[in-house]
Amino acid sequence: MTDMEIDLNADLGEGFGIWRLGDDEALLDVVTSANVACGFHAGDPVTIRRTCAAAVDRGVAIGAQVSYRDLAGFGRREMEMDPEDLCAEVLYQLAAVDGIARAMGGRVSYVKPHGALYNRICRDPEQAEAVVSAVLDYDQSLPLLTLPGSAVHEVAAREGITTVTEAFADRAYTPSGALVPRRSPGAVLHDPGAVAARAVRMATGHVVTAVDGSQVPVEARSICVHGDTPGSVRLARAIRDSLAEAGVTLKAFT
Amino acid sequence: MTDMEIDLNADLGEGFGIWRLGDDEALLDVVTSANVACGFHAGDPVTIRRTCAAAVDRGVAIGAQVSYRDLAGFGRREMEMDPEDLCAEVLYQLAAVDGIARAMGGRVSYVKPHGALYNRICRDPEQAEAVVSAVLDYDQSLPLLTLPGSAVHEVAAREGITTVTEAFADRAYTPSGALVPRRSPGAVLHDPGAVAARAVRMATGHVVTAVDGSQVPVEARSICVHGDTPGSVRLARAIRDSLAEAGVTLKAFT
Amino acid sequence: MTDMEIDLNADLGEGFGIWRLGDDEALLDVVTSANVACGFHAGDPVTIRRTCAAAVDRGVAIGAQVSYRDLAGFGRREMEMDPEDLCAEVLYQLAAVDGIARAMGGRVSYVKPHGALYNRICRDPEQAEAVVSAVLDYDQSLPLLTLPGSAVHEVAAREGITTVTEAFADRAYTPSGALVPRRSPGAVLHDPGAVAARAVRMATGHVVTAVDGSQVPVEARSICVHGDTPGSVRLARAIRDSLAEAGVTLKAFT
Amino acid sequence: MTDMEIDLNADLGEGFGIWRLGDDEALLDVVTSANVACGFHAGDPVTIRRTCAAAVDRGVAIGAQVSYRDLAGFGRREMEMDPEDLCAEVLYQLAAVDGIARAMGGRVSYVKPHGALYNRICRDPEQAEAVVSAVLDYDQSLPLLTLPGSAVHEVAAREGITTVTEAFADRAYTPSGALVPRRSPGAVLHDPGAVAARAVRMATGHVVTAVDGSQVPVEARSICVHGDTPGSVRLARAIRDSLAEAGVTLKAFT
Repeated sequence: MTDMEIDLNADLGEGFGIWRLGDDEALLDVVTSANVACGFHAGDPVTIRRTCAAAVDRGVAIGAQVSYRDLAGFGRREMEMDPEDLCAEVLYQLAAVDGIARAMGGRVSYVKPHGALYNRICRDPEQAEAVVSAVLDYDQSLPLLTLPGSAVHEVAAREGITTVTEAFADRAYTPSGALVPRRSPGAVLHDPGAVAARAVRMATGHVVTAVDGSQVPVEARSICVHGDTPGSVRLARAIRDSLAEAGVTLKAFT
Repeated sequence: MTDMEIDLNADLGEGFGIWRLGDDEALLDVVTSANVACGFHAGDPVTIRRTCAAAVDRGVAIGAQVSYRDLAGFGRREMEMDPEDLCAEVLYQLAAVDGIARAMGGRVSYVKPHGALYNRICRDPEQAEAVVSAVLDYDQSLPLLTLPGSAVHEVAAREGITTVTEAFADRAYTPSGALVPRRSPGAVLHDPGAVAARAVRMATGHVVTAVDGSQVPVEARSICVHGDTPGSVRLARAIRDSLAEAGVTLKAFT
Repeated sequence: MTDMEIDLNADLGEGFGIWRLGDDEALLDVVTSANVACGFHAGDPVTIRRTCAAAVDRGVAIGAQVSYRDLAGFGRREMEMDPEDLCAEVLYQLAAVDGIARAMGGRVSYVKPHGALYNRICRDPEQAEAVVSAVLDYDQSLPLLTLPGSAVHEVAAREGITTVTEAFADRAYTPSGALVPRRSPGAVLHDPGAVAARAVRMATGHVVTAVDGSQVPVEARSICVHGDTPGSVRLARAIRDSLAEAGVTLKAFT
Repeated sequence: MTDMEIDLNADLGEGFGIWRLGDDEALLDVVTSANVACGFHAGDPVTIRRTCAAAVDRGVAIGAQVSYRDLAGFGRREMEMDPEDLCAEVLYQLAAVDGIARAMGGRVSYVKPHGALYNRICRDPEQAEAVVSAVLDYDQSLPLLTLPGSAVHEVAAREGITTVTEAFADRAYTPSGALVPRRSPGAVLHDPGAVAARAVRMATGHVVTAVDGSQVPVEARSICVHGDTPGSVRLARAIRDSLAEAGVTLKAFT
C-alpha cells in the first residue's frame, strides 16, 4: 500500500432476525472492507450469509467482527471474562463467519473486534491475549484491525499476528491522538464536508486536527465509516468522493 | 468397511456454561465417533473446544451435531422454519465446529442432525433439503449420519451427498423396522447384557428382534450409544466389549 | 360497549436492545389498547418499561403480548411444546409485564398471544389449554384477545376465561370469514381509504366484504392495527379518523 | 428475631431446560429461605414454577435471585451496564418470579442479587442504586439480602429499603471481616463439622475466627448455604442439626 492508498471499513450485517440496522446494500457500494457481525452482538446466520454474498459480489473484503456474547446490549457492555472462554468464543465466531464466507466464494481476510471488546483489548493485555490466541489458533496470517498504540498491538506483535491501524474521520481527537469519548460534547462530527476533508488529510497528510487545534499524527491504513445512523451512507459517500478527488486510491488493506 | 466392522457414535459436549450433561471423558474412551454439540441446543465454545481436543487426542472422529436454535428445549422441539434460515443456521454451526476442530488438529468428518431436527428431516423433504444444502455449500464430501429409509436419504442421494445409516441397540423396533416412539412403554431397553447382545446381532447378522418377536433387517454402519443417562457409560462399555468378543472391529465410518 | 364503540389495538414495544420496530410514540396516540411485547419474541425490559409508562400517560390499555421463546424468529415460527412448559412461559411473561406496568402506575388488563402462538391456539386445543391455564393461574379476570370461532375460544369458555374478538381492517377475508393467508396475493390491503372504510363497516355494520364480493358477518370488539410497516401509522390514523367521523367512539374494551 | 433465631438461605431452581444443578428437593427440606433463580443466569419458567410450588409446600420463604442477563456465564461475570437498563432488568425478573410465586400460593418476600451482580453492588453505588430503584418501583417493603457494610446497604438505607445481612459458614474471613476471595487457597471450607461449628458461633456468639486466628464480629440474620456442589446437602444438614442442638431456632427472616 502506497501513501496514496487507503481502505474504508464499515460494520455490516448488524441486524438480527426481523430487525435491521443501517443500509447494508448502500454501504457495500462505498466501502472496501466489510466488518461482518458474527452472531454474538448481532448477525443471524442468514444475514451473515447474505452480507458475505453481497460483499463477494462487489469485491469487498470480509472481516470477522467478533464480539462479547451480548445481543441485548449490542456488544457495547464490557464483560469480565475468563480468557479461555473468551478465546473459544472468538474462535467460534471467526470460524462460523469464515465458513459462510467460503461457501459464498470468499473468505474472512481480517478480524475486527466489536464495541466493548474492541475498547477493552486496547488497554487489557489479558483479554487482548485471548483474542490474539484465537486468531493464532485459527489462522495466524489473519491481521487484526484496531487502534494504533494499544495493548492488543503489543500482544499481537509478540505473538506474530499482524495488526492494521485505523482512524475515525467523524470522531474528535485529543492532542495525544486518542479519541474523545463518545459521550463528551463534540465527540462525533456530523458535517459531511468537514468529515470528508479530515479523511483526505488523514490519507494524504497522515495528520488530524485535534480539539485544541493542534496537528496530531495519524498512522492509518484504513478509515472506519459508521453505518448505523441515518446520515451514515451520505457521510461515507462524501468521504469516498473526496478521497477519489484527492487522488487517493480506495483499496482493501488485505 | 467389511461386515465385521462397525462404528459407535454418541452425543458429546452437550453441556452449556456451568451445566454438564453426561460423562464426556468416559464416553470418548468407548466410542469411535463423537457427535459434538454446536452451540444451538447445547455446547458453548469452550466446551466444543475441549471436546474436540479430547476427541483428537483419542483418534475419535468428530461430527457436527447441528440443531434448531433452542437452548431452552435442548433442540427437542420441532420448529416451523423458513428453509433459507435453516440452511444458514446449519451452515453456521457446521463451520463453527469444523473451525474449532481444525484449530485442535482435527476436523469435522460428518454431520449428524440433533433431536427434533433429526426426526423432522426423516419425513419433511423441505427441511431435509435445507440441511443437505448447507452440507453441499460447506463441503460436499461430508456424509450425513441418519436413519435408513428416510426423506433426508432421498434428498441427499439426489444432491450427491453421502448418507451413513445408524441403528439403536437400546431402542425397541417395530416389525417394519421403525423405532418404537420414545414415550411408549418398553421403547428403551436398559439391561446392558440384552442391549449388548442386540448390538452384536446388528453388527454381525444385520438383524434385530422386533417387539412382536419377528426378525427385522437392520443395515447400519454405526450404532448410536446414548450418553445422557446415569447408566449410559456402563451400557456403552458393555456394547463395546461384546462387539470385541464377537470379533467385530470398532472403527469410525469416516 | 354499545354498537357504536370500538377498540383499536396494535403491537408495541417490539424492539430489542439497539433494534427498533415501528413508531411506538405515534401509534400510542392513535390506539386505545397496546399489546406490549414481553421479552420472548421482542421487548427488552427497558423497552417494556418505557412502553408501559407511555401507555399509562395516554390512558391506553396495556395487554401482555405473550409469545414462544424465539427472538431469532420474532415468534413467528410454530413450536412443538410441552403444555406444562408453555403454560409456565406464558405465566412468566404475563407476570413480568404486569409487574412493570404496575410499577408505572398501570396494569395488564388483557392478554394477546403473538404470532405463531396466536395462530396455533386457534386450532390446537392442547396449546390453547396451556395458554388459558396460565391466565387462570395468574388472574382469571383477564380476557384473551383472539380470533372468533377458534379453538382457544372454546377452551377459554370451558375454563371460565373471557375472550374478546378482533378483526383486521387491512386483511382480506374468505367467504367463510377466515383471513386469507398472508402469503396469498391480495391478502394485505394497503390503501388507507379502503382500509378505513372497511373498519367503519366492521364497527357500524358488523360486516366485511370478502374476496368473492360476498358480505361476511364480523363480530369484533376490537380492530387490530399493524405497526411494523412504514405506512402503518398513516393507516392507523386513517382508520381512527374515519371511525370518529362515522360517529364511532374509540374506547378500550377493558 | 431474637439472638437465638437464624435463617438459612440457599440458591435454588438454578437449572435451565434439560440441565440441573444441585438437589433442590433435598435443600428445600433444610433451608428456611429459597433464593429462586429468575431466568437471567438460570431458571427456566417451569423450573421457577416447580421450585416456588415446592417452597410453598414446605413453608420456605421465597426470594428473587435477580442477576445479569448471562446464561452462558451463569451470571458470574461483571458487566458494565446502563443503570436504567439494569433497573428495568431487575424489575422484570422480580415481577416474573413474584407472579409465579403468587400463582403457586406464595409470594416473593425478599430480593437477593446473584453472583457478579451481588459482588458489584457491594462496591459500586451506581449499580447498587439501579437495583434498589427496581425494588422501590416494585414493592418498597421487600428487603434486600446482602453483605454487611457494603455500598448497597448505604444506598438502600438512603432510599428507605430494608437490608438484611448474611454470613457464610463455609467461607474463610479476613481479619477485617471480608470474605477471602474464592480463588485464594483455603477460601472455601469443606469439613462439615468445622463449618457447622462456625455457623453455631455466628448465630450464638456473632463472631467468626478469621484466617489469622483473630475473632471477627459477624452480624448476620441469615447464613448462606451453597447448593451446587456434591457435598452441599450434607453440609447444609450438618449446619441445621448443629444449630438445632445449640438451641438456635431456624426461621425465615421475613
